[in-house]
Amino acid sequence: MNRLVYLLSILTVASLSARAQQRPPAISSPDVHPDHSITFRYFSRNAKKVTLSGEFLKAPVPLTKDTSGIWSVTVPPVKPDIYPYSFTVDSVQLADPSNTYIFANERFKRSIVDVPGDQPLVHSLQNVPHGKVSYRYYKSGTLGTTRQLLVYTPPGFNPNGKTRYPVLYLIHGGSDTEETWTKVGRANLIADNLIAQGKAKPMLIVMPYGNVRPAPMPDFTKDMVNDIVPFIEANYPVIKESKGRAVAGFSVGGGQTLNIGLTNPSTFAYVCSYAPYTATEEFKKNFTDWSPNADQMNKQLKLFTISVGTEDFLYEPVKQNIAMFQDKKLAVKSYIVPGGHTWMNCKQYLATTLQELFK
Amino acid sequence: MNRLVYLLSILTVASLSARAQQRPPAISSPDVHPDHSITFRYFSRNAKKVTLSGEFLKAPVPLTKDTSGIWSVTVPPVKPDIYPYSFTVDSVQLADPSNTYIFANERFKRSIVDVPGDQPLVHSLQNVPHGKVSYRYYKSGTLGTTRQLLVYTPPGFNPNGKTRYPVLYLIHGGSDTEETWTKVGRANLIADNLIAQGKAKPMLIVMPYGNVRPAPMPDFTKDMVNDIVPFIEANYPVIKESKGRAVAGFSVGGGQTLNIGLTNPSTFAYVCSYAPYTATEEFKKNFTDWSPNADQMNKQLKLFTISVGTEDFLYEPVKQNIAMFQDKKLAVKSYIVPGGHTWMNCKQYLATTLQELFK
Repeated sequence: MNRLVYLLSILTVASLSARAQQRPPAISSPDVHPDHSITFRYFSRNAKKVTLSGEFLKAPVPLTKDTSGIWSVTVPPVKPDIYPYSFTVDSVQLADPSNTYIFANERFKRSIVDVPGDQPLVHSLQNVPHGKVSYRYYKSGTLGTTRQLLVYTPPGFNPNGKTRYPVLYLIHGGSDTEETWTKVGRANLIADNLIAQGKAKPMLIVMPYGNVRPAPMPDFTKDMVNDIVPFIEANYPVIKESKGRAVAGFSVGGGQTLNIGLTNPSTFAYVCSYAPYTATEEFKKNFTDWSPNADQMNKQLKLFTISVGTEDFLYEPVKQNIAMFQDKKLAVKSYIVPGGHTWMNCKQYLATTLQELFK
Repeated sequence: MNRLVYLLSILTVASLSARAQQRPPAISSPDVHPDHSITFRYFSRNAKKVTLSGEFLKAPVPLTKDTSGIWSVTVPPVKPDIYPYSFTVDSVQLADPSNTYIFANERFKRSIVDVPGDQPLVHSLQNVPHGKVSYRYYKSGTLGTTRQLLVYTPPGFNPNGKTRYPVLYLIHGGSDTEETWTKVGRANLIADNLIAQGKAKPMLIVMPYGNVRPAPMPDFTKDMVNDIVPFIEANYPVIKESKGRAVAGFSVGGGQTLNIGLTNPSTFAYVCSYAPYTATEEFKKNFTDWSPNADQMNKQLKLFTISVGTEDFLYEPVKQNIAMFQDKKLAVKSYIVPGGHTWMNCKQYLATTLQELFK
């Protein structure tokens, strides 16, 4: 019955929309069923072939068309998680037109589907106090421009109170945006849940935009140290010592994390790198023939972790980098887990990190 | 030269990306040129036909393919503004894969292109103090769920200070989301700019999610009055009287604005409706055979405006509604301007409203 009411209500709006925008009819996609199977739908009278690609699938699966032009497929139950997916219509890859939740990214357009667990997952919206995520502008002297960043403040945060909070600076992957850690990684909800359970300390999480174009990537290291950290410390009641600062990031952002953290150990006492992409000039320059004072760095760094999945296409180079840091006698803690170069893994890396920071 | 460095830098990441995601090559689209012409690009080796649709065009225009599979078209100079657009590849409509800026909407996926003016436009990012936009969750007792809303707080906002701020509750159009007013309407930047110029009072702008599914739309009126307003007033230093509350909205949200505002004149002293869609049961129930005490309402309402464009497909019904309210002796102020049922118009309606509120 509810679905009927829903369809009737959107048909009213659809007739408005159709006049205004010549939009396709409203259809519901994706529909996640109680047994964790999922139905995907796409409307096209003219398409010859529609397939679904998703990170819950080993290979694309075809949709079939009914007489009204609605293509659909129901995939068998999948493990509860948040997954990116897209359709390919004839030769065109696109996000699901019926789904609001878009993977925040500069280059590809994919949708995300949230399959809830029978028990709440660490990234799910639960009945706990919620922090907030603020979109702010800061001036980057390094880059000569005004950029946007996101700031998570925990439940009960008082900007004028006496509490000084620690800060995690959290960097997205290459071609992601400053929104990917909240929109796909649900960093804010993971923090809400772990703080509510007493497993993570209340902290700020700062999510900057890590891509620097057309300038080279080392400029982001400068932007972080000279612009972003000072902006946060001028505007929020935070701990202005290395013991109150952590840096973490995924993929290209994982490489940036190593560059930023390990070349500034007096600034960041926590360095957590997720499936780092390190085939960059900056990494080569920083760490080829690098001879750190390991004793001193191991005292400065309260935590230095590298996480990667065994099916990650960067698994081998990440292992080599872990070995390289071990050769240099750095106390690097490695988390080798199942899974690939995905945001499903990335959420788990963050959930692990948050429980280790600032303790 | 900068473009070359840019292309080289993204080629590095592209090779990573291609391995990870089988993404298409990185191309730049849209490119807005100094003379306000715009080049759009799309990559496909297999497509037979690619066209561009945009609200700056009277009709779709074709792209042409080069030997490397990059389709492109350059459109002549357009009037500086922010415009939605999309590609149609063979029969498939899609957002520009190369453009991060997506029109926040539940049903269609379009991109937006920002054509800057020779002088800064009212919605542009200018060198002025910036407020911030916070994403928050509130519990809706009316709807029995937790929903997200966005709160703009102005520059210098102090949550613990003595200043009590007025609040504008600002509702998106049908099938838009709580993000459309910032992502497409740039409500935060319009407010920043008008506040910096002394043309608007510092205020909060609350942008809720106005769609209610599967329940009927009147539930949003209850959600606004019984859940959203109390949530804001419990969490922010605001004026808790009608003179400190305004409601405004566009299209379906413009209809909701009339329903919410005119049935609660002791709650909202400012009611500003933009191109309202009013063919709803709620509107019919509220305003058919409605006999307001006009003298009393005209005292309660410090401002009651209805805006519409002469090319808006709702122009005729909006004019009829204006006449209906005038017949009932309400002091409705109408803004009839050029333009259609677009967010280009919508931004102008908001910029006008902000200069009239709370004065």
